[in-house]
Amino acid sequence: MTIEWIAVDWGTTHLRAWAMQGDTILDQAQSASGMDQIPRDGFQKALLDLIEGWLGDTVMDVVACGMVGARQGWVEAPYSAVPSVPVPDAPVRVPATDPRIRAFVVPGLKQTSPPDVMRGEETQIAGFLAHRPNWDGIICLPGTHTKWVQVSADEVVSFRTFMTGEIFGLLSNQSVLKHTVSEGWDDAAFAEAVADALSRPEQLAARLFGLRATDLLQGQDSGVARARLSGYLIGAELAASRPYWLGQQIAIIGDQSLSEIYAIALKQQGAFVEIADSTQSTLAGLLQARNLTRQTA
Amino acid sequence: MTIEWIAVDWGTTHLRAWAMQGDTILDQAQSASGMDQIPRDGFQKALLDLIEGWLGDTVMDVVACGMVGARQGWVEAPYSAVPSVPVPDAPVRVPATDPRIRAFVVPGLKQTSPPDVMRGEETQIAGFLAHRPNWDGIICLPGTHTKWVQVSADEVVSFRTFMTGEIFGLLSNQSVLKHTVSEGWDDAAFAEAVADALSRPEQLAARLFGLRATDLLQGQDSGVARARLSGYLIGAELAASRPYWLGQQIAIIGDQSLSEIYAIALKQQGAFVEIADSTQSTLAGLLQARNLTRQTA
Repeated sequence: MTIEWIAVDWGTTHLRAWAMQGDTILDQAQSASGMDQIPRDGFQKALLDLIEGWLGDTVMDVVACGMVGARQGWVEAPYSAVPSVPVPDAPVRVPATDPRIRAFVVPGLKQTSPPDVMRGEETQIAGFLAHRPNWDGIICLPGTHTKWVQVSADEVVSFRTFMTGEIFGLLSNQSVLKHTVSEGWDDAAFAEAVADALSRPEQLAARLFGLRATDLLQGQDSGVARARLSGYLIGAELAASRPYWLGQQIAIIGDQSLSEIYAIALKQQGAFVEIADSTQSTLAGLLQARNLTRQTA
Repeated sequence: MTIEWIAVDWGTTHLRAWAMQGDTILDQAQSASGMDQIPRDGFQKALLDLIEGWLGDTVMDVVACGMVGARQGWVEAPYSAVPSVPVPDAPVRVPATDPRIRAFVVPGLKQTSPPDVMRGEETQIAGFLAHRPNWDGIICLPGTHTKWVQVSADEVVSFRTFMTGEIFGLLSNQSVLKHTVSEGWDDAAFAEAVADALSRPEQLAARLFGLRATDLLQGQDSGVARARLSGYLIGAELAASRPYWLGQQIAIIGDQSLSEIYAIALKQQGAFVEIADSTQSTLAGLLQARNLTRQTA
């Protein structure tokens, strides 16, 4: 089997690469060399460290998505404006690379009002839609910055970003709650917290310190506290994103266990939810972007 | 002038001491030796480093309030339960101290339902009420963990804690917003954000990333972004604490500039607000606690 191209998902905290033949994965590799971990001039080296073994005599196409296309990234790939198909334009070529590669970065999407941006998710959305012509509905992409995306007629109509994952990380690792929230999980506590947050979302600010106080006064299992914190934050997100998901067909694309948590919360509200494979979506989207490259090359 | 006793406010991140004669300040000192900065057996040394110059031949009373009375503190001063006067019991004596001092720690307050705790604020409340017999109303103590306290007939009836200050610090210093929110302030942006958060508190989770996206797409003055972040978080706190403050007489005790920010937000809602001096309240409360010590000694 011959490696034809290399797919890359390059975010703030991770770098993943796949050796591809068409849509078939021949090999894969990953490292912690995310945007935040490498110097401005370190992109090519970080990538070659991972993929050098896959290179040969012919020039190899590398197609990347994610924060690598930000202004502080390898090459700036300016946002496309919504409403738009998720990947409307050919990826931006990285200038002056190692002669063994031709590297491209997929542009992100921007929304003027309310202001919002995405980088990486547009590729997953394109990949998800590639096999679902005329799919209309809502795509939720949970993560550090969770996206809710309205899709109609193969276009991203609008989207909204929530910092739920990042806030969960800060509160559970770096706030006074770190003494209370560590390991474990409790399904019932999560479900209760989601319902509580959805019914009285304005109380979020009051509930958080309550986790610490409950622990101090009554003792509280760390898994119960962790599930409650997650439930409060995801519940608050669902309260704010209700205009997106209420009564809609919903697909979740993301980390498997996080996707399942979101699915539980949404099903609890009577929503119909499908979980899509995150890696498959990314690779199908990058393949589509690669085809745009070849059309314009 | 002879130093009669030493007042100490000892929190998680600070240590402040005052050399007192009755209710008169003769000298003051402070250091960064808060609870989080010193080892478990380092309390006495951290204090003596600050107050040793004030000690003489007679044994000196030291009366402290704050997190120093927590289980991980110098001596555990178990919480008193509300409803209760703010300092119902004599402070707890620290065992086996340097012979030049007799050290005491004021107990905090706890609330069973909903679970909540305070340490330090009870002393400020006692000091504030010392000169206001029969004052009924709401005391707001803004800070890392802001407290809203209902006072009636000289007792703390109930209270609620909000992590607003800690969340503001985490988001502005350690999240993706750190690139957007640094220095400066804008009164109009703050007022608008408070009003926005109060009218649609469930949208908080969506507004935060919007600060970053606005900066990326349109550019945004750092002071405007900082004031907006503060306004969103304080607005969310006011939405959750509305049952406390609506239609009530309100006193704010805390850092001067933070107190003024809360006052602006509350006055915007038509509330009547008084700002009380934080240090005076602390010292008057510690004097009251010292008198309890002498009654039982």
